[in-house]
Amino acid sequence: MSSEFGKLLRISVFGQSHGRAIGVNIDGLPAGEAVDLEELNAFLDRRRPGKSSLSTARRETDTPVFLSGMEGGLTCGAPLCAIIENSDQHSSDYSRLRDTPRPSHADYSAWVKWGGHADMRGGGHFSGRLTAPLCVAGGIAKQILARRGIFTGAHLAAVGTEEDASFPLWPTKELFEAVAAKPFPVLDDAAGERMQALILEARQAADSVGGVIECAAVGLPAGLGDPMFDGVENRLAAALFGIPAVKGVEFGGGFASARLRGSENNDPFALEDERVVAAANRAGGILGGITSGMPLTLRVAVKPTPSIAKPQHTVDLRERKETELVIHGRHDPCIAHRAVPVVEAVTAAVLLDLLLEGNHGTF
Amino acid sequence: MSSEFGKLLRISVFGQSHGRAIGVNIDGLPAGEAVDLEELNAFLDRRRPGKSSLSTARRETDTPVFLSGMEGGLTCGAPLCAIIENSDQHSSDYSRLRDTPRPSHADYSAWVKWGGHADMRGGGHFSGRLTAPLCVAGGIAKQILARRGIFTGAHLAAVGTEEDASFPLWPTKELFEAVAAKPFPVLDDAAGERMQALILEARQAADSVGGVIECAAVGLPAGLGDPMFDGVENRLAAALFGIPAVKGVEFGGGFASARLRGSENNDPFALEDERVVAAANRAGGILGGITSGMPLTLRVAVKPTPSIAKPQHTVDLRERKETELVIHGRHDPCIAHRAVPVVEAVTAAVLLDLLLEGNHGTF
Amino acid sequence: MSSEFGKLLRISVFGQSHGRAIGVNIDGLPAGEAVDLEELNAFLDRRRPGKSSLSTARRETDTPVFLSGMEGGLTCGAPLCAIIENSDQHSSDYSRLRDTPRPSHADYSAWVKWGGHADMRGGGHFSGRLTAPLCVAGGIAKQILARRGIFTGAHLAAVGTEEDASFPLWPTKELFEAVAAKPFPVLDDAAGERMQALILEARQAADSVGGVIECAAVGLPAGLGDPMFDGVENRLAAALFGIPAVKGVEFGGGFASARLRGSENNDPFALEDERVVAAANRAGGILGGITSGMPLTLRVAVKPTPSIAKPQHTVDLRERKETELVIHGRHDPCIAHRAVPVVEAVTAAVLLDLLLEGNHGTF
Amino acid sequence: MSSEFGKLLRISVFGQSHGRAIGVNIDGLPAGEAVDLEELNAFLDRRRPGKSSLSTARRETDTPVFLSGMEGGLTCGAPLCAIIENSDQHSSDYSRLRDTPRPSHADYSAWVKWGGHADMRGGGHFSGRLTAPLCVAGGIAKQILARRGIFTGAHLAAVGTEEDASFPLWPTKELFEAVAAKPFPVLDDAAGERMQALILEARQAADSVGGVIECAAVGLPAGLGDPMFDGVENRLAAALFGIPAVKGVEFGGGFASARLRGSENNDPFALEDERVVAAANRAGGILGGITSGMPLTLRVAVKPTPSIAKPQHTVDLRERKETELVIHGRHDPCIAHRAVPVVEAVTAAVLLDLLLEGNHGTF
Repeated sequence: MSSEFGKLLRISVFGQSHGRAIGVNIDGLPAGEAVDLEELNAFLDRRRPGKSSLSTARRETDTPVFLSGMEGGLTCGAPLCAIIENSDQHSSDYSRLRDTPRPSHADYSAWVKWGGHADMRGGGHFSGRLTAPLCVAGGIAKQILARRGIFTGAHLAAVGTEEDASFPLWPTKELFEAVAAKPFPVLDDAAGERMQALILEARQAADSVGGVIECAAVGLPAGLGDPMFDGVENRLAAALFGIPAVKGVEFGGGFASARLRGSENNDPFALEDERVVAAANRAGGILGGITSGMPLTLRVAVKPTPSIAKPQHTVDLRERKETELVIHGRHDPCIAHRAVPVVEAVTAAVLLDLLLEGNHGTF
Repeated sequence: MSSEFGKLLRISVFGQSHGRAIGVNIDGLPAGEAVDLEELNAFLDRRRPGKSSLSTARRETDTPVFLSGMEGGLTCGAPLCAIIENSDQHSSDYSRLRDTPRPSHADYSAWVKWGGHADMRGGGHFSGRLTAPLCVAGGIAKQILARRGIFTGAHLAAVGTEEDASFPLWPTKELFEAVAAKPFPVLDDAAGERMQALILEARQAADSVGGVIECAAVGLPAGLGDPMFDGVENRLAAALFGIPAVKGVEFGGGFASARLRGSENNDPFALEDERVVAAANRAGGILGGITSGMPLTLRVAVKPTPSIAKPQHTVDLRERKETELVIHGRHDPCIAHRAVPVVEAVTAAVLLDLLLEGNHGTF
Repeated sequence: MSSEFGKLLRISVFGQSHGRAIGVNIDGLPAGEAVDLEELNAFLDRRRPGKSSLSTARRETDTPVFLSGMEGGLTCGAPLCAIIENSDQHSSDYSRLRDTPRPSHADYSAWVKWGGHADMRGGGHFSGRLTAPLCVAGGIAKQILARRGIFTGAHLAAVGTEEDASFPLWPTKELFEAVAAKPFPVLDDAAGERMQALILEARQAADSVGGVIECAAVGLPAGLGDPMFDGVENRLAAALFGIPAVKGVEFGGGFASARLRGSENNDPFALEDERVVAAANRAGGILGGITSGMPLTLRVAVKPTPSIAKPQHTVDLRERKETELVIHGRHDPCIAHRAVPVVEAVTAAVLLDLLLEGNHGTF
Repeated sequence: MSSEFGKLLRISVFGQSHGRAIGVNIDGLPAGEAVDLEELNAFLDRRRPGKSSLSTARRETDTPVFLSGMEGGLTCGAPLCAIIENSDQHSSDYSRLRDTPRPSHADYSAWVKWGGHADMRGGGHFSGRLTAPLCVAGGIAKQILARRGIFTGAHLAAVGTEEDASFPLWPTKELFEAVAAKPFPVLDDAAGERMQALILEARQAADSVGGVIECAAVGLPAGLGDPMFDGVENRLAAALFGIPAVKGVEFGGGFASARLRGSENNDPFALEDERVVAAANRAGGILGGITSGMPLTLRVAVKPTPSIAKPQHTVDLRERKETELVIHGRHDPCIAHRAVPVVEAVTAAVLLDLLLEGNHGTF
């Protein structure tokens, strides 16, 4: 097993970048849930390339075809399988790559694992293209959560050394929608300008740049998740590291909390309209693995696109000698901004799974 | 389910801090493996409190009693259950805490989840004490891995703003042993002095401080782990977030990679004695979720101990009003240094689980 | 989760009988395995209807389209998704069934579970049609097992009260192939004639009839499976009960063993060419959940097709009154003979999953 | 993994027959549930040996000690671990067995799996003694279910060729209690007399005899369970085959249904006090893997005790030659009657797990 996550809601992603189709099978969706296709396509558009000079011009046809699980626009209880056919394939670009692994790509480890049988054209099953079906699953989860007053949103918190503002203590649905509607998903547009400049600069230097994404969810009931190894953090982290290029995940204060004193990092409890709230949220809405009712906040580190135009040093696996590699084709100089909806999608899917479990703490 | 992790090797932790006993059940250990009890106890000693002025004087009796799974000093194939009896209990210290949740502890979220039935004396099932049985499991895993040439080690990478050096590109078994033998587990003892000063300073200020742990593993074959959601990163992160107070996990360059250019972050491949290696290791030994044969490196953020002597603001859940809380008893001003062997234990357990799977990529 | 099974090899089935497509996603197949499409289609043909007067004339197009997981005729390590498009749909036949559940079908329980949103046209996700993608998965598993000297076979052991002979103590690959090649899959053709007469008789009586399938596997190494809840029997039973209409599963002597004395039921060990064998096989090749190296044998009870032409008593769920139901359309008077390859497919898939785990008892 | 089952409620059994202790860890129990120890011990008494001439005189001390998961007589949300210490050990009886596997025991397959390291004294981890902790888990589950109006009961349906009556269409809590209170758990005491005579006869013949257990549950809501591979039948079967000596599991009509016509086997729906019921229950309360609201019924085949006093043929694994084996010590000539509460325990545990999931079909 590999390309699946979830407990009551199982999400399985399949496909290779240049194969016949990519897709997702979602097993465990509640029945009778409307899927608003227009809204879903708008969500998918947020990760699609080719929208600006910041990303590759490759035209992907991301329109999902639903093979099962829906009847009359509603989920019907049976597994929902949606596929996206691949049309724009330039496999010739990748023919040399079988023997000369691209640095910091999965080429080499996959070659070892699968004895050279891996289909690595366009990155194969490891391609960022596989995040399209993930967004189908997450986009549907987002709609189901929204119907229950739970909203998720994300923005690009940093590109290289340029940083956006952070979400406020209590982000709102409206704020999430406003960021999602922007062509470049940041809170502070001036920071966004600087980030875009940095990305273009990297492109001109035949290079790439990494970034950080902040994601939040509001409206979650307290009491979701289990202690120790099956908590909200464990399950979110396990899924988020499935997004290609993610190398770090932190909740609330995360690594910054490690630099603080307890008196600075602790979130004092308070009452607000009879509700128990916290006056700060360095816990990111999770205490002991269990939701506290405060907004969930997390941050994800995305490494710079490993595909760069600069010549790189690698090894010819067949001839067993060192060699120089030049990667042709067009590649995104930064994938972090396109990964924003993907982080949101994965977060929404995990939260829906947790919500389906209900609070079986008492029953 | 909550307090379990692993796939072929299932590790279940049970117990509450002030209950009769805490323990671990390990299902799936290979048979015929010797468990060196002396070595295991030495490993457990590394996390035990009461060793210095840096941690609480509470005397814990961490000697595990093996109820099953061993015969004549060897594992016998059946589940191995080991327990540690609790002897030193001051439950009176915690009686008020049922209604006044400590900020940034699990008290409140557990109270919601379990309708007030949680046994939160001493932190209950959320207590750092539960890491003792985790170390029993991890200590056994370490011995089994070592027999196959796989070694794990960890050090305290930071306390507050004071930072240790990093592991070298190729850490060795000897380096791991040298750090493990130190009373304060750092690479650079001068940095260690500064860290300890910071911890004592926090204690004097009735406060606490957080830290970061770096862990590495060498000797892993390439090809372990699966793509997307069942990779080495996913499984390690899911388990590491089960350690109390962990708020962030990163692999290789992690969040720092997000600030770099691709040309800086990519690890060029090279040949060394016919072996494919990388000239740098910002990938942390994992490409596409699969081991590359380079050392595995990860970092874990530990928040400052939430139990501090300073008065804190909280809520009286019964009387439904805000109140001031003073936590009595002695508490570690920093738990990060004691968490060093715990991170190692969890890492070793996950790696053994992956190794048991073998490389079923081809078979 | 619902329509998935397996541990290292995960098989997920999706689709509804009258939806756009049905299919299977197989995650965890070893890479580099050839899939012989001709052989696979021949296997799929064995369950296809419309071949004789014994089954419905409905023309199903069972040819799978591979969307992913294959490259150049070999598995490539990534999840393999195969779909079968639905072309022959008579949904009008089923319109009344939404409110008047057919006795002993899943209509009523699905209606309760999914609040009336279930797509039950043609049986929906519960249809026997979903066994076609199961056979795709099992057919591929059979080929991979055969390459390792493991062969599976099955025959119709009974239809109603008419019984076939049993597999001999040591069935062979050749015997399996001979049965598979027959139009009616029995060992004793005279018994097969009587069974077919019984089926035709049931059809003429506007009725249906049940049956029993015996399945065996040879060439399995000893030591596969784990004790108690993760043994070969547990995993096979869990998967076999997923085949529609299966109401009983037994291994070796099964229910007949319950009538025997220990001295009759015990299988004495013996040596044959230096190999430990048993002189009888009432254990069905499994002792304590673990394979013994003897042939695996199991039997599966298939209930009579619940769709019969006779008028039946049921309830109108909307009008909340009792009513008479006549099921139109053509239905198989017996599904047991068509379920023979399905039992084989599920058995092969579970065995391959077990084999991928290897014997991690020692390693 | 091996000795665990369940999804939200995970039950892990550990221990060897002659080890220090056996026990069970239950992860996922709802909090705030009272555990009536008197009632639990009465339930455990039902499987204890040494009560009559029908079973071995071995005195087992089956009183569980609760290490965790309870506080003030109530479950507290944390994993509940209970152990039973082993006191009465005659390991000398088993010393020869390491090299001469007892026919139809797990000795040989465990020896292969674990390379001779298995602790097989008294059957080791495969011993029927391990059903004591299973009954602790199931006994607690029974109490939690009863509080929600769900009752489970079982009786000995057959010993050898002697058969008891069957449960009526609608068994009641009172009937379950009446059978449970009997020294020999049958519905028809005259049949019970004949069964006991058969058991004594087998003992006198230095032999043993098998049996069949029928188990039922009433009060289950309709809509529990999922289609295909995660239904009520799949999950019950997977767990029930974990009981030592079980070789067959059937639901409702089971194998007998395979001999019937559809018109005989179908359960017509009817209305009773506005409720949808079935006029017969050959489905055993499960349609398409999902509960229908009718009583759940299942039957389990228990093979004759493989330990018999008669000399048996086996193999000396060390000297690699055939040999004669005489098993000393006292052994139950029949274990089926003692397995009655065990089947009930496992059934209750699986049903509680399903109930905790709730009906996430719609939510």
